[in-house]
Amino acid sequence: MIVVLRADATETQISHIVEKAEKLGLKAHISRGVEKTIIGFIGPEDVLRVTPLEVFPGVEQVIPVLAPYRLVSREFKKEPSIVKITEKIQIGGKKIFMMAGPCSIESLEGLRSIAKEVQKAGAAILRGGAFKPRTSPYDFQGLGEEGLKYLKAVGQELGMATITEVMDTRDVELVCRYVDILQLGARNMQNFSLLREIGKSQKPVMLKRGISATIKEWLMSAEYIVANGNFNVLLCERGIRTFETATRNTLDINAISVAKQLAHLPVIVDPSHGTGHWGLVGNAAKAAVAAGCDGLMIEVHDNPEEALSDGPQSLLPAKFESLMAELKKVAQAIDREI
Amino acid sequence: MIVVLRADATETQISHIVEKAEKLGLKAHISRGVEKTIIGFIGPEDVLRVTPLEVFPGVEQVIPVLAPYRLVSREFKKEPSIVKITEKIQIGGKKIFMMAGPCSIESLEGLRSIAKEVQKAGAAILRGGAFKPRTSPYDFQGLGEEGLKYLKAVGQELGMATITEVMDTRDVELVCRYVDILQLGARNMQNFSLLREIGKSQKPVMLKRGISATIKEWLMSAEYIVANGNFNVLLCERGIRTFETATRNTLDINAISVAKQLAHLPVIVDPSHGTGHWGLVGNAAKAAVAAGCDGLMIEVHDNPEEALSDGPQSLLPAKFESLMAELKKVAQAIDREI
Amino acid sequence: MIVVLRADATETQISHIVEKAEKLGLKAHISRGVEKTIIGFIGPEDVLRVTPLEVFPGVEQVIPVLAPYRLVSREFKKEPSIVKITEKIQIGGKKIFMMAGPCSIESLEGLRSIAKEVQKAGAAILRGGAFKPRTSPYDFQGLGEEGLKYLKAVGQELGMATITEVMDTRDVELVCRYVDILQLGARNMQNFSLLREIGKSQKPVMLKRGISATIKEWLMSAEYIVANGNFNVLLCERGIRTFETATRNTLDINAISVAKQLAHLPVIVDPSHGTGHWGLVGNAAKAAVAAGCDGLMIEVHDNPEEALSDGPQSLLPAKFESLMAELKKVAQAIDREI
Amino acid sequence: MIVVLRADATETQISHIVEKAEKLGLKAHISRGVEKTIIGFIGPEDVLRVTPLEVFPGVEQVIPVLAPYRLVSREFKKEPSIVKITEKIQIGGKKIFMMAGPCSIESLEGLRSIAKEVQKAGAAILRGGAFKPRTSPYDFQGLGEEGLKYLKAVGQELGMATITEVMDTRDVELVCRYVDILQLGARNMQNFSLLREIGKSQKPVMLKRGISATIKEWLMSAEYIVANGNFNVLLCERGIRTFETATRNTLDINAISVAKQLAHLPVIVDPSHGTGHWGLVGNAAKAAVAAGCDGLMIEVHDNPEEALSDGPQSLLPAKFESLMAELKKVAQAIDREI
Repeated sequence: MIVVLRADATETQISHIVEKAEKLGLKAHISRGVEKTIIGFIGPEDVLRVTPLEVFPGVEQVIPVLAPYRLVSREFKKEPSIVKITEKIQIGGKKIFMMAGPCSIESLEGLRSIAKEVQKAGAAILRGGAFKPRTSPYDFQGLGEEGLKYLKAVGQELGMATITEVMDTRDVELVCRYVDILQLGARNMQNFSLLREIGKSQKPVMLKRGISATIKEWLMSAEYIVANGNFNVLLCERGIRTFETATRNTLDINAISVAKQLAHLPVIVDPSHGTGHWGLVGNAAKAAVAAGCDGLMIEVHDNPEEALSDGPQSLLPAKFESLMAELKKVAQAIDREI
Repeated sequence: MIVVLRADATETQISHIVEKAEKLGLKAHISRGVEKTIIGFIGPEDVLRVTPLEVFPGVEQVIPVLAPYRLVSREFKKEPSIVKITEKIQIGGKKIFMMAGPCSIESLEGLRSIAKEVQKAGAAILRGGAFKPRTSPYDFQGLGEEGLKYLKAVGQELGMATITEVMDTRDVELVCRYVDILQLGARNMQNFSLLREIGKSQKPVMLKRGISATIKEWLMSAEYIVANGNFNVLLCERGIRTFETATRNTLDINAISVAKQLAHLPVIVDPSHGTGHWGLVGNAAKAAVAAGCDGLMIEVHDNPEEALSDGPQSLLPAKFESLMAELKKVAQAIDREI
Repeated sequence: MIVVLRADATETQISHIVEKAEKLGLKAHISRGVEKTIIGFIGPEDVLRVTPLEVFPGVEQVIPVLAPYRLVSREFKKEPSIVKITEKIQIGGKKIFMMAGPCSIESLEGLRSIAKEVQKAGAAILRGGAFKPRTSPYDFQGLGEEGLKYLKAVGQELGMATITEVMDTRDVELVCRYVDILQLGARNMQNFSLLREIGKSQKPVMLKRGISATIKEWLMSAEYIVANGNFNVLLCERGIRTFETATRNTLDINAISVAKQLAHLPVIVDPSHGTGHWGLVGNAAKAAVAAGCDGLMIEVHDNPEEALSDGPQSLLPAKFESLMAELKKVAQAIDREI
Repeated sequence: MIVVLRADATETQISHIVEKAEKLGLKAHISRGVEKTIIGFIGPEDVLRVTPLEVFPGVEQVIPVLAPYRLVSREFKKEPSIVKITEKIQIGGKKIFMMAGPCSIESLEGLRSIAKEVQKAGAAILRGGAFKPRTSPYDFQGLGEEGLKYLKAVGQELGMATITEVMDTRDVELVCRYVDILQLGARNMQNFSLLREIGKSQKPVMLKRGISATIKEWLMSAEYIVANGNFNVLLCERGIRTFETATRNTLDINAISVAKQLAHLPVIVDPSHGTGHWGLVGNAAKAAVAAGCDGLMIEVHDNPEEALSDGPQSLLPAKFESLMAELKKVAQAIDREI
């Protein structure tokens, strides 16, 4: 922690700050410059973080030096983590895994049909929403537990792992019974009650980045899960909100590299939400692979005209299949495989 | 709903779209221009909203005409709503109400002492957090139910109404028992499970705008609460996230006017979060009053150096008192009162 | 300047950095923590700013301590500056000055007619664009020098000061001959050639904040003008670009207070661009006065339906007149006058 | 152009709007819905664009249907354009071209040395700044014409094409004499005087996207150049400003696909500015190639510690060389070549 003092800070004010810090077990190093004096505090920054040094008289600026996350950081664990879903599906190594399926689960037959298509094309994990976070209270809200049953049935039938979103602390246990991976959606990235509840389970979880969350805040949300005991966290970049309206979201391609430099967790990319339009999904997916992601989540629907949600950004199965062929080549070019 | 067709759209494609819409009970008006053909659909737009016209062949762009919210809109109810908290506190009329108190409830004595100060200065509603949404799992998370008890006790003792945040669907009933107004925080603005749960209660609720929520999305979240039966909604502008880092958030002063033009609900402003620094709170509060808000929520602490949260943006009681005197004059200047 | 080292930085790397800094005349203070070592450099930060310490081996982060602007800062000059336009118009004191007029100068008669109206309502400075920065090459680009002649003629006839935008280094001298205040538009805030050219004149200049400029960058652009010898700079907040699309721009009301804390220059606010819609201008203007601005620039047109630019955000003269009456009351409430 | 009327619009108001449009030579189609009436206008939208229909009584919203750019659009020219720099360098086809070199030209020897390295690695175009847009007036502003001479000399000596930024209308002719491609920087993207001046020359120009420019605005700036007669325009995505501070800019990877769908111009990507840190440049460059760009501009310096600008984001020549090898493989994977 570094404290920059105002030009007019008095000696009494400086002593007051130093005493406070020393009481908390920190050592202070004072550097007096011509224009500014700065104090560096050595020791566990956490104890200072809860002390609002900004309000101490004479303080101009407080600059944290240590990252606020610990357990997810590369400093805590140098090697990249492998998150094991099943024996065959271990995410974070050389192989890039594909999650695909419809936005919402609409019927057992519909789900099965799409699942077969995406599996044939190479997807190992089936996605499908049972609880849908919809902006409008009047839109389709998902089939709930009925949908979870379909997802589990199709997953078992085809031998695919499954992922679905959980939105309510009261549903965590229920959803855990049906699927292999929990999805924590962008809108709930800072729903701390839900993060804690998921942290108490041991179920792998894919944590989507909030629409306006910094990478640091995203990692802090991961830290919530890990600090509660669940280390099986996949990060998922799905586009951020910017001033640009030509796309639904702005896919932050840099976030893949930055998150992997700062944290040891695998990074998945969702080019469907990251673009919002099927015609843009392919290029974004290829870019994500080239940039080093560990998996992709792509929305696929065999009749987007009738999809109950996210039709505009869903790929047709045939399009998904040809994209998979392209993605394999891009993965090879960077010494990965799909 | 207006559909703009691609320049190369065929007659078959146009018929396909028109038929689809007519099946849903809408009438289509086709306007053929030199460069583009557009189709206007007359009828309830809701049925079309769930049909992803964007994916129909030949479609370039789909433009909704009607606002997606209904019950909160000025078209549904022309007159501004008054939200009644108690007989004396009816928000949305000529009088502007002040909510003030500490960010977190830290102790009974501490809360009582601050409450007396803010009441003396003119605040009618006491704020204080018992469940705290903290970015870090290692920071103080609030006193929980113990805090709620203190809040209720002090409120009753001094005759102040009370407001506190609820973060978990499982806590709604509990919190309702202790306070007069629920606060739904910015991070949970699109926690749809929580919105629904709060909608089922009849407790007045202050809905904070999400850090990157458009005004339209904010109103859609209010619609969730109202559509579930609870019309006692206060909107709260508390600053949005932008590229500017000199302030914690960018207070969107225009949002007051826009929200009041589009919806009939009262608008509260939180200049503490809207600035992030006590030295900026006063000017932002005066601006909010001048711009037409119906209430202000301000963090006050008698020892910000020891505050367990949000110390940097908390006012000292004396500063709050002098600000109140200034705010009264600004309110008078625009024919309101505090 | 503070340099935070990587956890694995070696002694050789540390020495390399310290030597480099000492060669530049700075003194290094090293603080070795358990997790991180930091180095504080004492001395003129400018010499280090051009040295990219970020690329030195072992460096994790470089944190500047001193503001990069000097001459515009409160540290350079504690008292707020008064920019003198004429004997009667001295901006930055108790009186708040109004600049009003049409977006574009369209004809001599039109300009005169609007000028009389805004002067009657209390505006001392007449605005009008002769060179218009238009997004489209096909839109009206302004009357050029002919427009400047009209502006000067009307200003002299009515005894009003005048302001107009200059967009091209080659036009600075020309524009200086016709008006009292140069306007440097938001799109040119970092047109450094133009900043330098204006800096060489002694003409008062109003520097609009760029649509996505931080307050720090805005002050750096002011520094360009001042460093070239022209201290007669007015800052102008006119709204920034954010994700919100309900308004043309998001008026950053906090920027008034922040700019006045950091710099000694007067701050003008443009609620016309800051909202983009005439129905929102009034509340934004009142908010700006309450927040402490030193002047307002408002677009007024007597026939917005026929305005060649910015019709939607222009006030009718009658509306401007009634707004002025309200603004006077708000100004009084905070001990200022209009 | 579509006009959405307010629910309370009167017949007189509707007639007033229709008459206005018909006077301008447009035909109006009125669709009366239960809640809203909309009017579609058929004909050249340009004449309406300058008429502020928003201010007509009864109007709620005006929605343009046609893109405001024409000459750069895919509708004007279906085939992608090839911009010819020299016989060997024709940008926009199967081959992806590399522009590389130092941020600033610092000396003849320095430039020559870096140029040889990047040429050996496969770059055909040498970049180097002679006029530098620096945020601070106290930073190195470039060598000016002296730098241009070095650039031309080294380009001729090695048989490389050259590119450099022009910042001032007065310098366009000068810069045209020395280099093969003009660069118009992000900060000047809406410097309309400069766009016009460059449009009058026939020199190929690379137009960088402004830091907060929408794709539509970027294309409008290209339209300025083309409308003035110069069709040799390369677009350059270089990252946009968002709330994320972990990277200098957020590289908008989607912008490549969107720009190429809307316009026929080649798209270059600048991963150096798009990330701001050399450790992130490689992944961003690979992503850009995978996403379909037609060229890359990368900053390379053989001694970043001493670079006078942009050291932190410059690659060492050896790193650039190994990146080139990787980029070639990614290009092959998507049927392009480098």
